[in-house]
Amino acid sequence: MEKKSPETEHPRRAIGWAARDKSGFLSPFNFSRRETGDEDVTFKVLYCGICHTDLSFIKNEWGFSSYPLVPGHEIVGVVTEIGSKVKKFKGGEKVGVGSLVGSCRSCDNCTNDIENYCPDYIFTFGGSPYHDGTTTYGGYSDIMVANEHFVIRVPDNLPLDAAAPLLCAGITVYSPLKYYDLDRPGIHIGVVGLGGLGHIAVKFAKAFGAKVTVISTSPNKKDEAIHGLGADSFLVSRDPDQMQAATGAMDGIIDTVSAFHPLQPLLGLLKTSGKLVMVGVPDKPLELPVFPLIMGRKMVAGSITGGLKEMQEMMDFAAKHNITTDIEVIPMDYINTAMERLAKGDVRYRFVIDIANTLKAA
Amino acid sequence: MEKKSPETEHPRRAIGWAARDKSGFLSPFNFSRRETGDEDVTFKVLYCGICHTDLSFIKNEWGFSSYPLVPGHEIVGVVTEIGSKVKKFKGGEKVGVGSLVGSCRSCDNCTNDIENYCPDYIFTFGGSPYHDGTTTYGGYSDIMVANEHFVIRVPDNLPLDAAAPLLCAGITVYSPLKYYDLDRPGIHIGVVGLGGLGHIAVKFAKAFGAKVTVISTSPNKKDEAIHGLGADSFLVSRDPDQMQAATGAMDGIIDTVSAFHPLQPLLGLLKTSGKLVMVGVPDKPLELPVFPLIMGRKMVAGSITGGLKEMQEMMDFAAKHNITTDIEVIPMDYINTAMERLAKGDVRYRFVIDIANTLKAA
Repeated sequence: MEKKSPETEHPRRAIGWAARDKSGFLSPFNFSRRETGDEDVTFKVLYCGICHTDLSFIKNEWGFSSYPLVPGHEIVGVVTEIGSKVKKFKGGEKVGVGSLVGSCRSCDNCTNDIENYCPDYIFTFGGSPYHDGTTTYGGYSDIMVANEHFVIRVPDNLPLDAAAPLLCAGITVYSPLKYYDLDRPGIHIGVVGLGGLGHIAVKFAKAFGAKVTVISTSPNKKDEAIHGLGADSFLVSRDPDQMQAATGAMDGIIDTVSAFHPLQPLLGLLKTSGKLVMVGVPDKPLELPVFPLIMGRKMVAGSITGGLKEMQEMMDFAAKHNITTDIEVIPMDYINTAMERLAKGDVRYRFVIDIANTLKAA
Repeated sequence: MEKKSPETEHPRRAIGWAARDKSGFLSPFNFSRRETGDEDVTFKVLYCGICHTDLSFIKNEWGFSSYPLVPGHEIVGVVTEIGSKVKKFKGGEKVGVGSLVGSCRSCDNCTNDIENYCPDYIFTFGGSPYHDGTTTYGGYSDIMVANEHFVIRVPDNLPLDAAAPLLCAGITVYSPLKYYDLDRPGIHIGVVGLGGLGHIAVKFAKAFGAKVTVISTSPNKKDEAIHGLGADSFLVSRDPDQMQAATGAMDGIIDTVSAFHPLQPLLGLLKTSGKLVMVGVPDKPLELPVFPLIMGRKMVAGSITGGLKEMQEMMDFAAKHNITTDIEVIPMDYINTAMERLAKGDVRYRFVIDIANTLKAA
């Protein structure tokens, strides 16, 4: 079957910014979106967060990117049209879409509300095709169409720009805190790495009532961690004395670091039965010392994003506790510079693109 | 303080076999045991299992052995004397002692019945000293004295020789099956390695009602796994096609292998949220691929032995389900040959020393 042009495969004209190859350079791109189906919600995109996964995809670091690729999976906006069978949303409502726009809806994972682990999940952009065989495009674009099951309501009291990163960064840390029983008052949570994921992990863990310690290679993040984000304490991971003094202190650790790093010092911080949860994705295997795992009944676990039901729960929890991400709002044409800065970790703590005001037709 | 001679530090004469140095060579040894204290149970040792940890300790592979070292921590026998405050036992009863003879009894772990994770636990032999500062000696000996808290009742219907290895091998696999929620009917459990730990893991997992697959490098263990031990299926871990066909099949895996081995193929066998539990102790770090952990919310965890309450529960469960270990009973003076064979994995599946009939005074 001949592959149709992105501009004409669907009837609705859309504009966005796309990478054309693994250089990852982004530039204006004309494409199309499907008509609003019976179960679809169409919304005008107002803001879109920039996740490190966007950067990995435009550069094809995971090896399955397809081009042209419009990134963006922290997408918020206002509903402009709904399909005839849509029950949860109506026009004018504030909504968002995260990293998923589809799944099989029938496997064990889907029926257990963890569509994010469905073997046939459909990523919001650049990877697997949609059910109709067409390419998915992400939120660096003016308009979005998604099945209502994959659309999240954004409560009115949350500012849309600072809420956008909750749709990926937020759920990515919220979900493991819940699943691994690390959402209880009085426990002690470590957060490794103070970036987009880490800073929101601190906020959620504090909202759950935990004592929170930030663990970072950079001593100069201490003030920000404690006074800016409300962490209770700070450990410089390269300081053996500090790490030694905290031996056996923590019930759980959320490790957001994607670079290669040693696990042994982190395992040492855990109490008996403590849990080290990886949410960053190092691109080569880490060294796992088994002795400390066994002697302390500890675990190293992973987690990625969350199911749709839990995403809504997370968003409502954030609204109730006034939790948003700390962001730097940028115009669309700053995107390539933003990606360079993101690669260096030079952002506090998340870039968000002001789509509505700065994305213009090419 | 002058260190007293093993023969005279306590009033009660005892005989056993000890290693004198890291050659690990065992030979007859005269030493002494304490008098039966108020809370102590003294028993005549009838059988003692040989665990791989005994081998590691006599050769000082973990680096903290002290010599002379009398190994043995799968010790069973008959009560000969009890202290004035002993409540749980009386003379003539069948009892056993596993890897622990002491702990602080006051930390969080002790009060939560996981004395095995107490930071001040006292190993049955060769490592930390007992509360009174004297050396602990294990079960390759004619007599044993232990605080009743660390003594397990062996139900009458269990043969003492084949029950002995339950005190370490048994609890080592029973405890993680319980703790990691892998003790439910209908789930699918993998057991990696068919040795002392693996063969009893198969029996417990079957008794819990699980489907059990043995995963081994040795195709020639298939018949024994299925017809001898009751496993439902068998995978040759070096056969990529077999492993691929079992992708995503298992809820949990008990990995008993102490040699360096790849984790990625095992993680691939797990369902979403599956658990890979290490109970073997590789002496160098394993390679942990993070991507499969994250994409499937999987975990790699550890576990060592179990608390005393759980040990009794395990022993009673074994009695109820007629679960014992498959053993080769040996005389005491065969011990050095048995250790050589154990090092090569040449035993189905556990050596047990017939102490009462073969241990003679030097």
